[in-house]
Amino acid sequence: MEKKEVLVRAALLGSNAKVAAEVREALRRRGILGVNLMSSPGAGKTTLLEKIAERLGPHSRMAVIEGDIETERDAERIRAKGIPAWQITTGGACHLEAKMIGRVFPEIPAELDYLFIENVGNLVCPAAYDLGESLRCVLLSVPEGDDKPKKYPQAFLSAQCLLITKSDLLPILPFDPERVKQEALDLNPRLKIFVLSALTGDGLDAFLDYLAGVRREAALPDA
Amino acid sequence: MEKKEVLVRAALLGSNAKVAAEVREALRRRGILGVNLMSSPGAGKTTLLEKIAERLGPHSRMAVIEGDIETERDAERIRAKGIPAWQITTGGACHLEAKMIGRVFPEIPAELDYLFIENVGNLVCPAAYDLGESLRCVLLSVPEGDDKPKKYPQAFLSAQCLLITKSDLLPILPFDPERVKQEALDLNPRLKIFVLSALTGDGLDAFLDYLAGVRREAALPDA
Repeated sequence: MEKKEVLVRAALLGSNAKVAAEVREALRRRGILGVNLMSSPGAGKTTLLEKIAERLGPHSRMAVIEGDIETERDAERIRAKGIPAWQITTGGACHLEAKMIGRVFPEIPAELDYLFIENVGNLVCPAAYDLGESLRCVLLSVPEGDDKPKKYPQAFLSAQCLLITKSDLLPILPFDPERVKQEALDLNPRLKIFVLSALTGDGLDAFLDYLAGVRREAALPDA
Repeated sequence: MEKKEVLVRAALLGSNAKVAAEVREALRRRGILGVNLMSSPGAGKTTLLEKIAERLGPHSRMAVIEGDIETERDAERIRAKGIPAWQITTGGACHLEAKMIGRVFPEIPAELDYLFIENVGNLVCPAAYDLGESLRCVLLSVPEGDDKPKKYPQAFLSAQCLLITKSDLLPILPFDPERVKQEALDLNPRLKIFVLSALTGDGLDAFLDYLAGVRREAALPDA
């Protein structure tokens, strides 16, 4: 990155951090756990959210903000599950920023446990932007390969949780989950790691239990 | 993107365009076709290059520049095939830029037909940076899903060639190649599209014939 670009970015991030802190506090006051999902395109973020919606059932207290360069496609998929969803299209920008979340905020219902924010599909840029979440999860899908954590370290360094997705493909693709776990923990020893398949449901309950635990530990007030 | 950031980026791109033009002219004088490969992480860029190296054999006149955020891993894989390779680590930047190619340029042997440049794994940012290539190929792998062209339009708009990779997974994953072709051609009607599997070799010869044809049409002098 050019030095000038770095300086401008630092200034922008400064203002992003301020807005992110406001979003986090507003979520906390309402008793909502904000979860930022980051990954490459096609790692299964939207499918995971569809399956969480199904698992939590018709009275699930969740909502979703979808980030994409273009199209309403992902928000439409979530709404089809009966879940409130807002689409942010960045029109070229490679990541979401806190102010984009802030703009949607007034429309979000107060009676929620979880606000999931699906970032733009990009394993690089989103890691640099705090959106006001309290939990950041990076997804790595089995078809992407087991050499990724050290090639794309920032996403793994900045997350609290790693989801190894599409585990149903483990029997047929060359991917060593132990290698990924070891590399990710070398970068970030406190990372909580789950192996799951949204398709078969394997590992989904363990992740949902973890989410409920994080929400409890955050001592969020009841909405 | 912030307005200020856009302005700075425009200035940087201006200088990038100048360096890219110099790289392109230097490649042309040497009779080398520069090929820029762009995709999400894990779409199979390095594996494709390994297979091209095997197919072209020990006397293949190719070299590779590898772009990654961190690690020498991809360059090591290419060198293991007996192909000269240089690793550029961007240290956080989400794309390669022409000046990075320019720095490696003096080390590149004159006796080449192809210089492949594997960009940082990212379906968004690299599309905005001309590296001095004469052919830009975007890869989309079957596990990423068939909804991607319109969600990430710039990569498909700026490429001359689309490679639908990991076609060996078509029988077991929900992916409609016709949908991808249609969406990609809606964006960019001149896009040349190949469906291939580096694993099985299906479709690889057609792509190599195409590369040879592009090199001939470019009327590059013999090195």
